[in-house]
Amino acid sequence: MTESNGPIHVCMERWQQHLRGKLDGGLDALLHPDVVFLSPIVFTPQEGIDVTKLYLTAAGGTLGGEPDEAGSGGGGFGYTKQILQGHHAMLEFETTVEGKYVNGVDIITCDDDGMITEFRVMIRPLQAINLVHAQMKAMLESLSG
Amino acid sequence: MTESNGPIHVCMERWQQHLRGKLDGGLDALLHPDVVFLSPIVFTPQEGIDVTKLYLTAAGGTLGGEPDEAGSGGGGFGYTKQILQGHHAMLEFETTVEGKYVNGVDIITCDDDGMITEFRVMIRPLQAINLVHAQMKAMLESLSG
Repeated sequence: MTESNGPIHVCMERWQQHLRGKLDGGLDALLHPDVVFLSPIVFTPQEGIDVTKLYLTAAGGTLGGEPDEAGSGGGGFGYTKQILQGHHAMLEFETTVEGKYVNGVDIITCDDDGMITEFRVMIRPLQAINLVHAQMKAMLESLSG
Repeated sequence: MTESNGPIHVCMERWQQHLRGKLDGGLDALLHPDVVFLSPIVFTPQEGIDVTKLYLTAAGGTLGGEPDEAGSGGGGFGYTKQILQGHHAMLEFETTVEGKYVNGVDIITCDDDGMITEFRVMIRPLQAINLVHAQMKAMLESLSG
């Protein structure tokens, strides 16, 4: 097995397919049943596929970025840096939420089969965290309500 | 050049020496003169070696962790995950500040000579950011005052 087709490379190929809406089975085909989600806001690990799907769906709705408008300077979600090694990936991203710059990182761990076992998110700067906090709260309430 | 002795591997070897206080020249031997520091708190990039040294020294003082006390459960700074590739490194860490858990990531970029050109830090959860924010402010005032 070479460095470029290890478990995390297979996993990230599938994650990118998912982000484009092209992965058969969606998150169910990507997440280990016992996956753990570590939120940028909350200390307590969120355990299991159901709650992780809820958080990732809410994050997609919050961080997906607004459609570009003329003169708005863009704002769509995009990865700016990707480092893959062994069972770990670090994907740095930039996006815009309510016109404010958000910079973050997805730190992803997979098992030997390329299934995601841990999904950890951090965000900067502080202004972005407070904004995402408020938006995620509203999004989680609407998804689970 | 193999994957394991690229610029970022040389750079990280020296960074670890610096953290142990064993690098001749200290941060001056690690940081490019035009290095940029991206804070977990502040949006505006901090440009140049002088301000970056100030921030990294303050961060070391804040995040270094308290000495272990009997029954305290420890709390020293330690890297929990490291991914190196090409010119980029992702170093995830855990530490304790005033008894509170802090989880963060250093995202470091170097040039072909292994000199650090960008140092980006993110922290979670929200409680940790607010705590580090207050401590860094006090530390920066004492260092620059």
